[in-house]
Amino acid sequence: MTYTPHFNQAGEAHIVDISDKSVTQRMAVTEGYIEMQAETLKLIVDMAHKKGDVLAIARIAGIMACKKTAELIPLCHPLSLTHVEIDLEPELDNNRVRCQTTVKTTGQTGVEMEALTATQIALLTIYDMCKGMDRGMVIQSVRLLEKAGGKSGHWLGD
Amino acid sequence: MTYTPHFNQAGEAHIVDISDKSVTQRMAVTEGYIEMQAETLKLIVDMAHKKGDVLAIARIAGIMACKKTAELIPLCHPLSLTHVEIDLEPELDNNRVRCQTTVKTTGQTGVEMEALTATQIALLTIYDMCKGMDRGMVIQSVRLLEKAGGKSGHWLGD
Amino acid sequence: MTYTPHFNQAGEAHIVDISDKSVTQRMAVTEGYIEMQAETLKLIVDMAHKKGDVLAIARIAGIMACKKTAELIPLCHPLSLTHVEIDLEPELDNNRVRCQTTVKTTGQTGVEMEALTATQIALLTIYDMCKGMDRGMVIQSVRLLEKAGGKSGHWLGD
Amino acid sequence: MTYTPHFNQAGEAHIVDISDKSVTQRMAVTEGYIEMQAETLKLIVDMAHKKGDVLAIARIAGIMACKKTAELIPLCHPLSLTHVEIDLEPELDNNRVRCQTTVKTTGQTGVEMEALTATQIALLTIYDMCKGMDRGMVIQSVRLLEKAGGKSGHWLGD
Amino acid sequence: MTYTPHFNQAGEAHIVDISDKSVTQRMAVTEGYIEMQAETLKLIVDMAHKKGDVLAIARIAGIMACKKTAELIPLCHPLSLTHVEIDLEPELDNNRVRCQTTVKTTGQTGVEMEALTATQIALLTIYDMCKGMDRGMVIQSVRLLEKAGGKSGHWLGD
Amino acid sequence: MTYTPHFNQAGEAHIVDISDKSVTQRMAVTEGYIEMQAETLKLIVDMAHKKGDVLAIARIAGIMACKKTAELIPLCHPLSLTHVEIDLEPELDNNRVRCQTTVKTTGQTGVEMEALTATQIALLTIYDMCKGMDRGMVIQSVRLLEKAGGKSGHWLGD
Repeated sequence: MTYTPHFNQAGEAHIVDISDKSVTQRMAVTEGYIEMQAETLKLIVDMAHKKGDVLAIARIAGIMACKKTAELIPLCHPLSLTHVEIDLEPELDNNRVRCQTTVKTTGQTGVEMEALTATQIALLTIYDMCKGMDRGMVIQSVRLLEKAGGKSGHWLGD
Repeated sequence: MTYTPHFNQAGEAHIVDISDKSVTQRMAVTEGYIEMQAETLKLIVDMAHKKGDVLAIARIAGIMACKKTAELIPLCHPLSLTHVEIDLEPELDNNRVRCQTTVKTTGQTGVEMEALTATQIALLTIYDMCKGMDRGMVIQSVRLLEKAGGKSGHWLGD
Repeated sequence: MTYTPHFNQAGEAHIVDISDKSVTQRMAVTEGYIEMQAETLKLIVDMAHKKGDVLAIARIAGIMACKKTAELIPLCHPLSLTHVEIDLEPELDNNRVRCQTTVKTTGQTGVEMEALTATQIALLTIYDMCKGMDRGMVIQSVRLLEKAGGKSGHWLGD
Repeated sequence: MTYTPHFNQAGEAHIVDISDKSVTQRMAVTEGYIEMQAETLKLIVDMAHKKGDVLAIARIAGIMACKKTAELIPLCHPLSLTHVEIDLEPELDNNRVRCQTTVKTTGQTGVEMEALTATQIALLTIYDMCKGMDRGMVIQSVRLLEKAGGKSGHWLGD
Repeated sequence: MTYTPHFNQAGEAHIVDISDKSVTQRMAVTEGYIEMQAETLKLIVDMAHKKGDVLAIARIAGIMACKKTAELIPLCHPLSLTHVEIDLEPELDNNRVRCQTTVKTTGQTGVEMEALTATQIALLTIYDMCKGMDRGMVIQSVRLLEKAGGKSGHWLGD
Repeated sequence: MTYTPHFNQAGEAHIVDISDKSVTQRMAVTEGYIEMQAETLKLIVDMAHKKGDVLAIARIAGIMACKKTAELIPLCHPLSLTHVEIDLEPELDNNRVRCQTTVKTTGQTGVEMEALTATQIALLTIYDMCKGMDRGMVIQSVRLLEKAGGKSGHWLGD
């Protein structure tokens, strides 16, 4: 029968054998959003102009989570990272913050999972810091935007 | 000026002082979705009937991530958990899997962040195991559904 | 159908709900062995008389692993520990080292898994430090000896 | 005096210097067993035919622990892994489950410790999930079966 | 012979048995400094006025490390925390940054180690972010200032 | 405006892109001290002659912390290590213990942070084990002594 590559012929999960894949530079870009009330977003923007920068803390949380991806996602290969960048942009017209994460490595497998994990945890950290005033915030549209390097080549989302 | 409680009067982030909050039973329920192509969802459902159960692995990943919440979310209090349950339901009509997580503790602070983290990582694990065939999957609508216990009392999302 | 308590009625794994269990003092004792060549054991004993104390390092590794049990065993409740003690005894007549671990907590669930994890990792650390001279070492008979506290009361192995 | 390589000339533990070892493909295979009552094994086999697959969860726990080896074993080098496979086989005639783990890397040191750790934690996870009905289960004969790559070449256990 | 309490009568390290200590509110305050060139300190202060706030990131790093204390210090008891606050103050006259950390818990043992760990890692994070321009920075005078709660009562450093 | 390299042009923290740096052997040496009362130091020295070796445990703690550096320091690249050595020397004339750490890697970035982290945690572990008799111990002069490898070449502290 057909399985995804994360299962062997017996249908048992394993960490896929990448011993013979070549070491190349690889990159992934992901995005996601957190929607909130207008006042919540306004407070985030106001605070950042003074000292209490929610977005700066969310960025650090995302970067640190990115390094923990292989601990969180069971079948992910542990790997080194050569670059992590997280951009958090308040979108006042849409009452949301957009998160875009770029991750690079030089290795035998891709970094989509690392970039998605960073995006998720950065957005969750915003939730944590603002939940006292706005429990109804929603995380939306977390997805891969772009991927490069390795045998599967360049991939661009819609 | 006004800050969220995660900042002190000087605008500096801290772990909020909960020394004087009472120890009560607390509960949180969260949900989220991962949308995918019809064939991807069909494969997940087919595999589960045999041996390769993507959803069972995602459930374990979510449970284990739940226990790591305070490591991931900078200002979260570390706490014990008395119950974690993750339900993953394929929705064939909507081409998506729904994740609902329930977390309980007996302590001085709530478990929303634990339940959201579990939901996020369970959904991400589905992405990881199916990404080889469907890179365009999207995580949607991750949010708190319900919360009970503690001074703020019962809260129900819309 | 019948399941172990780690599965709900739908056959899905969860962290069992212990919200209503009482907080009591709990204790567990485990043991295990690592068998090796006579010369390997002799070197371990000789080194301990000087500076290179393999057993002291294995003891620390076991203690630190004990604190990571809930990270390693998927459905274990995270909990505090009030005591961890690891005894490593060379048995020259049997060409092996015996490990006995005692763990205590005050909480809503037992500490067997914590004590077993400590025993396993202490023995593995001995393997690591001596594997250069004796790859054929074998870890044997890791088991629970005694357990006290909680509803199930006192339990003694054969 | 003589020490194992994990100690320097002063008898102090260190992480051995492998800077000048060559990067090669390395592999290790380990095994171990957990013995139990006949009814316990029967339940594990029955549950796997329905939904509650203890062995699938143990396999994931072993894979995730494998990635934590350098955190658990004090003098282990942190390294990348290119493959992890865990096979768990019920042996009805012997009232036990056999675990065989294969780990590969491309690096400067071997992966025996990673494979042993995965085997230990997979077996412990079985213990955890069945301990409610059978506290007397025993983990037996955890050992290295085979090792390849690096200067010491191929090694096969008895 | 005399040992510190972290060793049993046989001279073997253990996690001290606190099962019978009472649960009380406990608090610890620590301080430490990082000395640097005048220009380095000036850049830190300048950057904080704009967006690149080294001290805010160091604060988050210290808070997150605080939660990892029991993973880092072998014989520390794992415990919950009810408050963590880190104050980082540039001292322009002394070419250094002062770090003061306050930690609270409600439990059976103190939080000095948690507060010291937070101070150390906050200071190290400053080192990391400024090392490109000033490799000679020195961390100085990391110590306990005050401790309250538990049997040993209130303690104040000189 | 001017930022350190850990911030991008928008003043946002990131993990610096090292994709194009060459893989070379890199090394760092750090030192630090813990000052204590004369009787405390005497006890440490006495205990080491028997079984309770505080310094051996501190050495292991430092080595294990070294492997956790990228988890602790937010913008550190995760990397492999090829050697870690920690020397702890009691200085009876100065009532202190000196810690010197050497770390090596083969990679795209340096290991100063790893060596500093190991030094800090080794010294903190001494504090932990002796704090019952001497709460006033102080950690002093933690700094980089030497660094080699990579584009910035050899660096020697004063």
